[in-house]
Amino acid sequence: MSSQLGKLFKISTWGESHGLAVGVVIDGCPAGLKLSAEDIQFDLDRRRPGQSALTTPRKESDTVEILSGVFEGKTTGTPISLMVKNEDQRSKDYSEMVDLYRPSHADFTYDAKYGFRDFRGGGRSSARETVGRVAAGAIAKKLLKEACGMEILAYVAQVGEIECQGSPLQFNLEDVEKSLVRCPDPKASQLMEALILKTKKECDSIGGVLQFVVKNVPVGLGEPVFNRVEAALAYGFLSIPATKGFEIGSGFEGTKLNGSAHNDEFITEKGKIKTATNYSGGVQGGITNGMPLYGKIAFKPTATIAKPQNTVNKKGEKGVLKARGRHDACVLPRAVVIVEAMAALILTDFFLERRARTGLL
Amino acid sequence: MSSQLGKLFKISTWGESHGLAVGVVIDGCPAGLKLSAEDIQFDLDRRRPGQSALTTPRKESDTVEILSGVFEGKTTGTPISLMVKNEDQRSKDYSEMVDLYRPSHADFTYDAKYGFRDFRGGGRSSARETVGRVAAGAIAKKLLKEACGMEILAYVAQVGEIECQGSPLQFNLEDVEKSLVRCPDPKASQLMEALILKTKKECDSIGGVLQFVVKNVPVGLGEPVFNRVEAALAYGFLSIPATKGFEIGSGFEGTKLNGSAHNDEFITEKGKIKTATNYSGGVQGGITNGMPLYGKIAFKPTATIAKPQNTVNKKGEKGVLKARGRHDACVLPRAVVIVEAMAALILTDFFLERRARTGLL
Amino acid sequence: MSSQLGKLFKISTWGESHGLAVGVVIDGCPAGLKLSAEDIQFDLDRRRPGQSALTTPRKESDTVEILSGVFEGKTTGTPISLMVKNEDQRSKDYSEMVDLYRPSHADFTYDAKYGFRDFRGGGRSSARETVGRVAAGAIAKKLLKEACGMEILAYVAQVGEIECQGSPLQFNLEDVEKSLVRCPDPKASQLMEALILKTKKECDSIGGVLQFVVKNVPVGLGEPVFNRVEAALAYGFLSIPATKGFEIGSGFEGTKLNGSAHNDEFITEKGKIKTATNYSGGVQGGITNGMPLYGKIAFKPTATIAKPQNTVNKKGEKGVLKARGRHDACVLPRAVVIVEAMAALILTDFFLERRARTGLL
Amino acid sequence: MSSQLGKLFKISTWGESHGLAVGVVIDGCPAGLKLSAEDIQFDLDRRRPGQSALTTPRKESDTVEILSGVFEGKTTGTPISLMVKNEDQRSKDYSEMVDLYRPSHADFTYDAKYGFRDFRGGGRSSARETVGRVAAGAIAKKLLKEACGMEILAYVAQVGEIECQGSPLQFNLEDVEKSLVRCPDPKASQLMEALILKTKKECDSIGGVLQFVVKNVPVGLGEPVFNRVEAALAYGFLSIPATKGFEIGSGFEGTKLNGSAHNDEFITEKGKIKTATNYSGGVQGGITNGMPLYGKIAFKPTATIAKPQNTVNKKGEKGVLKARGRHDACVLPRAVVIVEAMAALILTDFFLERRARTGLL
Repeated sequence: MSSQLGKLFKISTWGESHGLAVGVVIDGCPAGLKLSAEDIQFDLDRRRPGQSALTTPRKESDTVEILSGVFEGKTTGTPISLMVKNEDQRSKDYSEMVDLYRPSHADFTYDAKYGFRDFRGGGRSSARETVGRVAAGAIAKKLLKEACGMEILAYVAQVGEIECQGSPLQFNLEDVEKSLVRCPDPKASQLMEALILKTKKECDSIGGVLQFVVKNVPVGLGEPVFNRVEAALAYGFLSIPATKGFEIGSGFEGTKLNGSAHNDEFITEKGKIKTATNYSGGVQGGITNGMPLYGKIAFKPTATIAKPQNTVNKKGEKGVLKARGRHDACVLPRAVVIVEAMAALILTDFFLERRARTGLL
Repeated sequence: MSSQLGKLFKISTWGESHGLAVGVVIDGCPAGLKLSAEDIQFDLDRRRPGQSALTTPRKESDTVEILSGVFEGKTTGTPISLMVKNEDQRSKDYSEMVDLYRPSHADFTYDAKYGFRDFRGGGRSSARETVGRVAAGAIAKKLLKEACGMEILAYVAQVGEIECQGSPLQFNLEDVEKSLVRCPDPKASQLMEALILKTKKECDSIGGVLQFVVKNVPVGLGEPVFNRVEAALAYGFLSIPATKGFEIGSGFEGTKLNGSAHNDEFITEKGKIKTATNYSGGVQGGITNGMPLYGKIAFKPTATIAKPQNTVNKKGEKGVLKARGRHDACVLPRAVVIVEAMAALILTDFFLERRARTGLL
Repeated sequence: MSSQLGKLFKISTWGESHGLAVGVVIDGCPAGLKLSAEDIQFDLDRRRPGQSALTTPRKESDTVEILSGVFEGKTTGTPISLMVKNEDQRSKDYSEMVDLYRPSHADFTYDAKYGFRDFRGGGRSSARETVGRVAAGAIAKKLLKEACGMEILAYVAQVGEIECQGSPLQFNLEDVEKSLVRCPDPKASQLMEALILKTKKECDSIGGVLQFVVKNVPVGLGEPVFNRVEAALAYGFLSIPATKGFEIGSGFEGTKLNGSAHNDEFITEKGKIKTATNYSGGVQGGITNGMPLYGKIAFKPTATIAKPQNTVNKKGEKGVLKARGRHDACVLPRAVVIVEAMAALILTDFFLERRARTGLL
Repeated sequence: MSSQLGKLFKISTWGESHGLAVGVVIDGCPAGLKLSAEDIQFDLDRRRPGQSALTTPRKESDTVEILSGVFEGKTTGTPISLMVKNEDQRSKDYSEMVDLYRPSHADFTYDAKYGFRDFRGGGRSSARETVGRVAAGAIAKKLLKEACGMEILAYVAQVGEIECQGSPLQFNLEDVEKSLVRCPDPKASQLMEALILKTKKECDSIGGVLQFVVKNVPVGLGEPVFNRVEAALAYGFLSIPATKGFEIGSGFEGTKLNGSAHNDEFITEKGKIKTATNYSGGVQGGITNGMPLYGKIAFKPTATIAKPQNTVNKKGEKGVLKARGRHDACVLPRAVVIVEAMAALILTDFFLERRARTGLL
């Protein structure tokens, strides 16, 4: 198990889907950041189950408690411990999963590796684990916002075959939150919503693609040769349950271009060096160049579906699984805030690293 | 700078394109592995510049020296230091780059972060840095092969719009090495070769996509929740120069499917639990399930092109760059072995971790 | 701040003296270890304030709650989150410390580094922080005991000028726990007890030395050249508040000997290679040799004393401090279990590392 | 094996006593530091064998080569690779050691852990390994000197029963280097020299104690709760071959004092907060307080002696070892620069960390 992330802004998440609570400890947050439970709750509410007809009906208020690291409304530089109690655990729904391996879930691999697992609701492999990430990410986002005005936004760019139209730079948080699906293109949003509800009714699930974009990125984040910004973001995003792909800047489409078309010409604007285009996606040589960071993350269709499925049990004997646990027909609307959190955690680490090593002598 | 990778099988690479040498130190390789310079040289030759008409004419024999860690033909468990001397440094070719920032290169960002850089041939940001990775990767590959029969293969799946036909499981190293482009589909290979030569003649460059596939993967590699196999692979691959995207299993295409179509049904075959399909790409819940690992990596067109390009210098003043340094019109044929190396390094780390934590009590 | 420890058995502690709670998250504990709250509570009770007339009168039941990572009485391999609520916070006692820096405490340095601190009871710099270490250490001790029979014991070897007589190998936990001071030599124990009570009455404090000894140590723990067993133990022990020194084996006294007297002759006993003497303290070349590990740790006199002391405030202005907070006149009796915990945490990490790298091929 | 050290200023050392070369790669050195081979050679010459009648007669020029990371006389922020070729390997001297385990050496434990070892001259367990540390340490020292005027000094404080008189603050590098033994008290130096030569003649060895002192230490280095300055120094020093103990400030002696005598009163001097005494040794709560850091390190008598010794071979069969390899009768004069290097490496890491986390918002 590896539930720790980060080198300077370090988090350690914990908790199972049907345990007593889930949470996170943040080690390395600088002192002096104003912080209240509300700052964190806002993002937890965006991740919360049961927030709309599109999401799992599991009822969780997901109320965060700050147990340490904040004094008189400000961070002290000591570890920040955050906890969210689990309220609505219907573990009985999972009694069938004790034996049968759910297809495309982690039941088999956890058993194979650990010999033993908390099967209730998927235990640690449940996406409920991301509560800790989102809580820590909310602090990272606030820190970056205050330290350099950085703004991190994610939204749903595709569900099934339906695509969001428009450039990532034109949308803001409000545009995204207006949509139940969290797609800022109203037309696509409506179609996506209908597709998700239809899929749900058919006892099935559907995948999609999230777009992320980061504005006001300082020049100089990233640590080549290994710890490049795009590599660290890829790591962060691919560690989110159900993700299958990542691309930055021009991504897979850009591979079809010639260098003369793809290269970003340097220009000077108001005394600042910029690029005329941004196929690079804001990163060159593994280091941010001050242009917006942007890219996409692929999410597979939710593995849990209400349709019966053939599978085997621990002994390898055949069986038919009919899931009863509550789940989302499409995880993307709730995954938006998780993507933002991972981006914020990764970029905060680089932000602190840049302070350590730049312009020393 | 972060030129270290790995937690148990740790590497530290060093060297600039036009410095005295490039190399790597491997810390944590288990004792008792038979190892000779030839084991490493084979892969270095696959990465070597000047190996065919398709690649940069820079002449480097890339002969590896083993400086420590091997005694009487076997690893001793102590650090293995490998060095490759640079031979053909034509630093004069880069005199224009002292001032002008090459578009879509790391010149600007390195200057911005470090205030200063070795501009000769791109210095540390040159892909020559990957010599160390390939050398270390050759050892990791050998270790995995001997310890569990694991086989790691990469090949060119797409150049520009031309695609390789066939399933990754059907190809082997020989098929790949027969092709100058390292595309195992002979038809596509020919078309790719022609396209690259044409692009070169036009003083331009072209991107593409690599496929990787790993067979005989043991069940139980991976450390959720953060250090998932797919996350670590994404990190490793996206740290390779010129990469813009990564996908595992069904990837971006799979997002359009329903769960009922995408889920991998568990079956039993000869007493072993397997999956009937493998949309998951060999990993579930961040842990390998014993099925082949496979996926794709996007490479942008080479940033260095012979065509003149507009850009600015350090002071932000306009200028026109006409590159004279030697370069590849398409990096993919030589990148194949780098991708294999990164996969091997990442998987060796997981292989050792699994030994540490599985079935203790 | 760095409140994380360990590479394979990783802990992340949190909490302030007068905050809501203190705790720890353990990441990397192997699955399948039987674990109940009682296993942990036993050691927490040995650390608990108010356990005897010798310790601070602060009343804390220090009841541990297991919030995650344990299912049906066994560890699952997922993070184990442990929490102990603070009950008896008399923050008013510390009102004077808002301004005045307590001599030989962390008030000044925390302010200097973080610009801001939770002054109540020392906040994070209070030894109350060690609750998390002791809780995690209890699990590590159990794991080592079950996996290889390892036994870790610490006791008070010196208070002021009074020394415990006898060899560390002759004592067991029962001998130690019989003594209020946790000194297994009854005569010395009585004298130490009297000295501590006298010192307390005089509004002063006194230092001392702890002995640690580890039996049934497997051969092969330790990772030279840097991560030697003695180096890692030194790190663990010197991270305990109030420690000023560490020695292993013959330590400082051994420096006066000749090599011919100090060298440990190898012998064979019942087919096993051992050493006739053990000046090495169970470690050679940074790796355990199967002989008992033993050594000493120096603790300075408690910085908090009831006598008035001259000091300055944040502005550098003179003042007189008369501490009212509750404290121990001698920390050693309660520090015994902290030393055991640190040894257990360090050795568990090595135990897992040895599994990863030994005898692979 | 763990031959890596550091989190921000990271080193990776390599090389065996009788291999081709020894060296180090430094990852994370800030850009812009003026650096030449001479800067490093000075300290290597202080560590070099054969520098006086007191040291091993092995002849090594220990000439350093800078292979990467430096351009036009300045560091570039990229990895710095340093190599020192081995010249005088008399591996035949060690033929007896193929079979017999040298008492108090690492032969047995390396075999037990790795199953196999390079026995020539102790291989990796030889103190020749510290060449890489000293080379990297020279760079760290220069960086600290230029960045904040920090001065790190070590000297021989005790050999056998002979002690150096005087306070660590009164001595400088010149005082130390004037003495063959590297003891700045001329009287003690003479006695020590005589004792070492006598011991050598008797085919024996002798231990001793080194003192270290660091002046001009900035306030705020250190990362409690685990990564305290004293813990990290203890780790660094106890990772040096032959060390058995460490103490900071008042150390073991201070344990006998009362708190009222031991506490360091805060005072204001020229507007700066200081302490009237410095029993703390420059660190409080794990963080430097701006006063000098000082302490001691215990070195056991050299394990290699020319006298015959009883021992066993790999099969456990008895034998008599008469060492012929070249060695020092007392390692302390050459260990001085290794201690300085370790202090510099540890403190540079903290220096960079402080920049990352202090005063962000």
